[in-house]
Amino acid sequence: MAEVLKNTFREKLYRVIFEAETAGGKVFDIILLVLIIASVVVVSLESVVELRRAYLPYFQALEWGFTILFTIEYLLRIYSTPKPIKYIFSFFGMVDLLSIIPTYLSLIIAGSQYLLVVRVLRLLRIARIFKLTRFINEGQVLSRALRASVTKILVFIGTVLTIVVIVGSVMYIIEGAASGFTSIPKSIYWTIVTLTTVGYGDIAPATPLGQILASFVMIMGYGIIAVPTGIVTVEMTRSQREAEHTRVCPNCHQEGHPLNANFCFNCGYKL
Amino acid sequence: MAEVLKNTFREKLYRVIFEAETAGGKVFDIILLVLIIASVVVVSLESVVELRRAYLPYFQALEWGFTILFTIEYLLRIYSTPKPIKYIFSFFGMVDLLSIIPTYLSLIIAGSQYLLVVRVLRLLRIARIFKLTRFINEGQVLSRALRASVTKILVFIGTVLTIVVIVGSVMYIIEGAASGFTSIPKSIYWTIVTLTTVGYGDIAPATPLGQILASFVMIMGYGIIAVPTGIVTVEMTRSQREAEHTRVCPNCHQEGHPLNANFCFNCGYKL
Amino acid sequence: MAEVLKNTFREKLYRVIFEAETAGGKVFDIILLVLIIASVVVVSLESVVELRRAYLPYFQALEWGFTILFTIEYLLRIYSTPKPIKYIFSFFGMVDLLSIIPTYLSLIIAGSQYLLVVRVLRLLRIARIFKLTRFINEGQVLSRALRASVTKILVFIGTVLTIVVIVGSVMYIIEGAASGFTSIPKSIYWTIVTLTTVGYGDIAPATPLGQILASFVMIMGYGIIAVPTGIVTVEMTRSQREAEHTRVCPNCHQEGHPLNANFCFNCGYKL
Amino acid sequence: MAEVLKNTFREKLYRVIFEAETAGGKVFDIILLVLIIASVVVVSLESVVELRRAYLPYFQALEWGFTILFTIEYLLRIYSTPKPIKYIFSFFGMVDLLSIIPTYLSLIIAGSQYLLVVRVLRLLRIARIFKLTRFINEGQVLSRALRASVTKILVFIGTVLTIVVIVGSVMYIIEGAASGFTSIPKSIYWTIVTLTTVGYGDIAPATPLGQILASFVMIMGYGIIAVPTGIVTVEMTRSQREAEHTRVCPNCHQEGHPLNANFCFNCGYKL
Repeated sequence: MAEVLKNTFREKLYRVIFEAETAGGKVFDIILLVLIIASVVVVSLESVVELRRAYLPYFQALEWGFTILFTIEYLLRIYSTPKPIKYIFSFFGMVDLLSIIPTYLSLIIAGSQYLLVVRVLRLLRIARIFKLTRFINEGQVLSRALRASVTKILVFIGTVLTIVVIVGSVMYIIEGAASGFTSIPKSIYWTIVTLTTVGYGDIAPATPLGQILASFVMIMGYGIIAVPTGIVTVEMTRSQREAEHTRVCPNCHQEGHPLNANFCFNCGYKL
Repeated sequence: MAEVLKNTFREKLYRVIFEAETAGGKVFDIILLVLIIASVVVVSLESVVELRRAYLPYFQALEWGFTILFTIEYLLRIYSTPKPIKYIFSFFGMVDLLSIIPTYLSLIIAGSQYLLVVRVLRLLRIARIFKLTRFINEGQVLSRALRASVTKILVFIGTVLTIVVIVGSVMYIIEGAASGFTSIPKSIYWTIVTLTTVGYGDIAPATPLGQILASFVMIMGYGIIAVPTGIVTVEMTRSQREAEHTRVCPNCHQEGHPLNANFCFNCGYKL
Repeated sequence: MAEVLKNTFREKLYRVIFEAETAGGKVFDIILLVLIIASVVVVSLESVVELRRAYLPYFQALEWGFTILFTIEYLLRIYSTPKPIKYIFSFFGMVDLLSIIPTYLSLIIAGSQYLLVVRVLRLLRIARIFKLTRFINEGQVLSRALRASVTKILVFIGTVLTIVVIVGSVMYIIEGAASGFTSIPKSIYWTIVTLTTVGYGDIAPATPLGQILASFVMIMGYGIIAVPTGIVTVEMTRSQREAEHTRVCPNCHQEGHPLNANFCFNCGYKL
Repeated sequence: MAEVLKNTFREKLYRVIFEAETAGGKVFDIILLVLIIASVVVVSLESVVELRRAYLPYFQALEWGFTILFTIEYLLRIYSTPKPIKYIFSFFGMVDLLSIIPTYLSLIIAGSQYLLVVRVLRLLRIARIFKLTRFINEGQVLSRALRASVTKILVFIGTVLTIVVIVGSVMYIIEGAASGFTSIPKSIYWTIVTLTTVGYGDIAPATPLGQILASFVMIMGYGIIAVPTGIVTVEMTRSQREAEHTRVCPNCHQEGHPLNANFCFNCGYKL
């Protein structure tokens, strides 16, 4: 593809917008990163009542500025990519569209809070930028380790949810509405708050029996946090080890040579 | 056993209900899983006062529907198993019975809250379904690792409980009833809430000395969470390694040779 | 020593009270364990105002019962040990004395709350019982791992304390007395509560700047909990590995043979 | 340098103040450590309104005492070092100056709270003392492990921040100002408080939908704490292993041979 795209303006544009190897591509990525973060900061600040009241015109001007820039970028992406339809319906294509639509919609319907949140989804666009950089390797090690342990983690979460529902129901009986345990769903919510050691304190057991059961839940929660940690650590150790130790001596089949080894440390054979 | 059960209707039923290898068995498991979760959701929602007031007839109808289906399933299990008595008095047999009794009981005695919670125990029936699937292997790795570290964890919990009782008593003296530390059991409850980093805030130290001791407890709790994590991680690494390193000697069937072994360490046979 | 002590009554007593190999010694340990736990439970319940008011005579009778039994035990220990002076001034000798003194003191001076707490120290006597049992090995693995990482943990705690003091001082400036940050020590207390993820909520930042700094502290606290966990896990892995893999082949000096190996897996030499 | 500095008073002073090998150097370090901690304790206590009101003259006297001692130390450092300009503009040179300036400034301008905090920065000077001691090695192992995992941790924190902003915005829509979620920044603050399992409870979800989303956030936060722990543990294991496995080839000085290596993997020399 790189061969085909080489000379025309459209091809150059493609390399700048979609890739990160050229100097232009890197500059483009940095500008885009700054614009996305700035636009999310503006959306956040706009939600503060006092600030919106005082600076509404400035917020609107900034928002239109960001929207116009992102619209130009979106159109350039469609123009430069060799497969526009595929891009438009790809995950990042949808996110790109979603991040400009709310401002245009606010012209037609009164700009509601909900549109505000859709704008925050712009943050997801940062993921694409990092996909192009050195962070990708580290991210892959992390996500590979997480993917490898996904079944174990599902078993763990399933067990935790079962515990949480049963303990929540028992707490509902023990404590009752007087201490804020007004229903089983609310008691389950309390159990999750306690087991994960968050502990808001908006609902807290008041009876001795409830406090004894709560103590068990806390110690259990404190202990079983070891399980996901153990799972992820084991997977990471393995994925790390695999990356390091996969050189085998073709002479004696000794494994575990460092990546910079020239000779087999077992038989002295030149690797 | 599979050989004996092969042809009759009862045998086919057994394979559908108790096993998961056949297509019918898989469909049965999925339907059962959905029914169990739906019935627990209904029980939970029924406990919300506003919902119960508004939709009581619907809840009752749904509850009778689930109960009848689970009763049919229970009878079919007794009918199809070759050892009905053993099934009835097995753990899962008891859970199956417990999950249908409350609704029938509510005909005789007024349906109390306690019966509500017994219904939630239906969740335990999910464990049987997963026993039949691929999750079982992962679950075994987890539970083997936990079993292997059970003595270490008991020593750890014993130490934590001793610390908690002593610190709780000292806090009772330092803070006293004015800050909510009205008795030693309550102070112990506070210490558990603090050491496990839950921190409701329903009781919190108010005196400088109490806050200094609380700071020590927090830093200690923050640090000793490393201990169960370390225990579980080490056991998981070992159980993982054992699963990987199960090279078997073709001569003496000794297991557990390292991947780079040249000779069986048991009989000296060249691998 | 066992040789010398063999035949007299005093020697038999020594083996029952101080050791755990004989049947009598095991029975003695179990009775002592039950008595200690029961006496601590009684002390705890006595601190609950309602219970003390209702059952004071029973509590006092129980307390005198425990004290007389522990006094007899203490005197028998002094009588049976070959080195009474050494026992009396040993750590456990002091704890044994401390656990009976408060009740006698309450005859002379009015039984204050402080004496209540001294009684709780009886719990420490449990440590001696477990020293004699199979738990000792597991406890040694844990405590060896903790001892080996003590310097690393001290560096870690030192760094955490420095962060906590500096962040606490800055929060005192940012938030001030209005949000409950009335002094630097109180702000440091808040920082510890936050960094360790306890989060009572008795003091919480109210200004935007304070909440931003608090967010940093929380994410930092959430992240650096990885450090003690990592330290302990690494030490445990090593202490585990050392226990397992210390058999070396005398022929080829290959390390890492399993404990049940008969032949070197590298050269086939009989171990 | 040690050769050149040997005989004069200035050279002796340098060894006492900047180094820790001589007896004099060790005594100097311990005195300095005590003075720094004492001065930070005085600053902390001075911020307590009741104490300042009662003992202001004593605090001022102590503060002037510390300042004069630290000033003498600062001047001696400049005098004894062979490169005074480099010292003055080094990190520790700046910290040394910052820790004495506030007291002198309070003569000119009214001593404000801000100067109080600058004094707390004296704590940073402790870092220099530990740089000279045996703690340095352990600290290096820790900081090397953290440095090696810095990219992975950045990817992790980036992902967490993206989740936090999006969840915060959604919670702002779901809960709204009634439950304290008055703006997106405040909702993001709440999300961080929840995800890190701190859980103050100053803001807590009140609607069922908000509590369901909060439950997801808590379980997620409870689970993803495994990620930094896994990262750091893996890095520590590696840095530990590297420290253990530094067998050097006597022929080519290549490091990092496994303990069971027979030949240098770089030059093939028989070890």
